[in-house]
Amino acid sequence: MASSISTQTQLVARPVGWPTAADFRTVQVTLPDLAPGQVRVANEFVSVDPYMRGRMNDAKSYAAPYALGATMTGGAVGRVIASASDAVAVGDVVVHQHGWRDLVQEDASGFRVVPEIPGVPLSAYLGVLGMTALTAYVGLLEIAGLKEGDTVFVSGAAGAVGTMVGQIARLKGAGRVIGSAGSAEKVALLTEKYGFDDAFNYKDGSLANQLAAAAPEGIDVYFDNVGGDHLEAALGAFNNGGRAALCGAISLYNSTDAPAGPRNMSNIITRGLSLKGFTVGNYVQHFPAFSADMSGWLANGEVVFDETVVDGIDNTARAFLGLMRGENTGKMVVRTA
Amino acid sequence: MASSISTQTQLVARPVGWPTAADFRTVQVTLPDLAPGQVRVANEFVSVDPYMRGRMNDAKSYAAPYALGATMTGGAVGRVIASASDAVAVGDVVVHQHGWRDLVQEDASGFRVVPEIPGVPLSAYLGVLGMTALTAYVGLLEIAGLKEGDTVFVSGAAGAVGTMVGQIARLKGAGRVIGSAGSAEKVALLTEKYGFDDAFNYKDGSLANQLAAAAPEGIDVYFDNVGGDHLEAALGAFNNGGRAALCGAISLYNSTDAPAGPRNMSNIITRGLSLKGFTVGNYVQHFPAFSADMSGWLANGEVVFDETVVDGIDNTARAFLGLMRGENTGKMVVRTA
Repeated sequence: MASSISTQTQLVARPVGWPTAADFRTVQVTLPDLAPGQVRVANEFVSVDPYMRGRMNDAKSYAAPYALGATMTGGAVGRVIASASDAVAVGDVVVHQHGWRDLVQEDASGFRVVPEIPGVPLSAYLGVLGMTALTAYVGLLEIAGLKEGDTVFVSGAAGAVGTMVGQIARLKGAGRVIGSAGSAEKVALLTEKYGFDDAFNYKDGSLANQLAAAAPEGIDVYFDNVGGDHLEAALGAFNNGGRAALCGAISLYNSTDAPAGPRNMSNIITRGLSLKGFTVGNYVQHFPAFSADMSGWLANGEVVFDETVVDGIDNTARAFLGLMRGENTGKMVVRTA
Repeated sequence: MASSISTQTQLVARPVGWPTAADFRTVQVTLPDLAPGQVRVANEFVSVDPYMRGRMNDAKSYAAPYALGATMTGGAVGRVIASASDAVAVGDVVVHQHGWRDLVQEDASGFRVVPEIPGVPLSAYLGVLGMTALTAYVGLLEIAGLKEGDTVFVSGAAGAVGTMVGQIARLKGAGRVIGSAGSAEKVALLTEKYGFDDAFNYKDGSLANQLAAAAPEGIDVYFDNVGGDHLEAALGAFNNGGRAALCGAISLYNSTDAPAGPRNMSNIITRGLSLKGFTVGNYVQHFPAFSADMSGWLANGEVVFDETVVDGIDNTARAFLGLMRGENTGKMVVRTA
C-alpha cells in the first residue's frame, strides 16, 4: 500500500501586516483507506503565490477567505499513487488545487490529468503552463486589450506573472516592453533573458522619472502587480486611451493601514483611461486558447522561464514568506521530495 | 445691417485653486463684414460646464487647454441674424461651440441647425438635448455598461449631468437608483422630481455609511461627477464586477495640492471592478441614438429637467464661478438678452 502520512501546512492566524511563521502550523495526518471514486496523489511541487496573502484576510472578495485551522489550498502537481476511480490511473500526472501538502487524497473530480512533456519539469504546470501564465495572458489580452504597437509597462516584472507578461506582450505585437523590478540582478535578467526593451530598479530613484526615461512617448498598457506608487507612476505616463490590468498589489498586501491611492486619479478622466481589476479564476474559459499558444511558444523556444525552488514540504510557509519579500525570480515552488 | 458689437469673455490667467473673477475679462469686439461662407449668430443661451475648469489648466488631456487671452469656447445656442452661406439661413436656430459671447461670426461649417420644438426652450440644446445629457447617456450605457436590474449610484446627482443619469438609468431598467447632493433641497428634488429611489446629503455624515444605508445590497454601477471621497465610498460599496464611469471630479478641480486617491484601490482587483474615464467629445457617434431616445422621452414627459438661468452675457464668468460652488440645480446657462 502507498504511503499514508500526509504532511500539511495550515493557516492558524490571520496575519496582521507581514505574515510570520507563527501564522502557520505543519501537521501530519494519517490518510484513511481510499473511498470509491477517490485517488491518492503524491505531490511533486506545490505552488506559493502572492494572491494567497489576500485570501488570508477576512475580506469581501470574489474568492472566500482561507479558513483558519484548515490546510492551505492552492495549485500543486503530483503523481497518482493509488486510485479507486476509473477516470484516473496510478502513474498519471495530475494538477489540482488541494495545496500545501505532500500527500493528498480526494475525489477524482478535483484532479486534471496532464501529459508529461520531455524536457519540461512538472513544476511548469504551476507556472508557464498553468494559472500563473494564464494570469499574464488573460490580463494582457482580455483585460488590457493589448493592441499591436502598444508600449507596455509591467511592474513586478521579474516575478512569475511579470516575466510571462513581458514575453507574451512581445509575441503578441507590442511595440515596446518595459519592466520594473527590485534588484540590479532582476533588471539585468529582464533585458538579457526575457526580451524587455528596457527595465529599471524601482529602488534606484523616482519611479516617474525612470518610467519617463524608459517610455519617452508614454505607455499604452500597464500590467500592475505592485499597486501604490507604481500605479501612480503609470497613471502619469499613460497616453490617451491607456488601459491598466490590475492583477496584484504586493506593495500593499502587508500594510496595516489603508494606504492612500494615486494622487493623479483625474488623469483617468482627462486621458480617457481604463483600469480593470481581475482574478484569473473568473477567466478560465481562456485556458484552451492560452494553452495552444503557450505550448507552441515553448516548443519553439520563444518563451523562457525561471523557477525558484524551495526544498521540503515542511518549508512551504517559509517559501511563501520569502515570496512576500521578493526572494524569487520567476515562479516560486516547493519541491516535496 | 445686424448688430456688430460682440461682448466676449476671455480667460486671462490660469486659475490656481479656485478660479476668481480676476482670471477673466470681458471685452467688446466690433465684427467685420461677413466673409463668403460665414454666418453671424445672436446667441440666446451660453453654457457653463464643470469640465471647463480642467481646460483652464495647462495639462496633458484629450482636449487642449484654453488659450490665454482668447475668448472662452463652449456650447451655445442662438439664431442666425446674417448669412453669407447657402447652408444656413437668417432665422435658423443653431448650436455651436463658439462659447462665451453674445454675437458670434464664423464659417457656417461650425454651426448645426436644430429645429425649434414647441414648449421646449432653446437652452434645452445645451442640456437635455445636448452634450450634457449625451454625457449621461454615454457614460451610463457605453462606459459603465448599465444592465437591467443594476443598482446605480450617482454623485453630483442634482447637477445637469446627474439628473439625467438618474432618469436614464431608470428608463433603461436599473433596479435601484441612488444619488448624492450637497443640500437638503437638492436631495428632496432627487426623490420627489427625478425618480431616484433614495438620496442623501454628503455633508450630513459618513459617505460610506449613508451609501451603505441607501444600497444595503451594494452597488453595481457608479457614475462619478465628484471624485475623491465619493469614489472611495463607491469602491467600498461595489459588488463583484462593478463598473464606474468617471465623468468628473468637481471635488478636486480647485484643489491646489494633488489630493491622495482612494484608500481601497485593492477592491478593484479583489472584486473585479472596472473604472473607466471619458470625455464626451470622443463619443459623439452616439448622438443619433441618444437623440432618438431623448426626444421620445421628452415628448412623453418621461424626462424632466431644471435649469439655473443667469441673465446677461457680462455675467458669464460669474455664472461659471457659481457653478463651481454648486449654486446650480440642473443645467446652468447664461441668457444673453
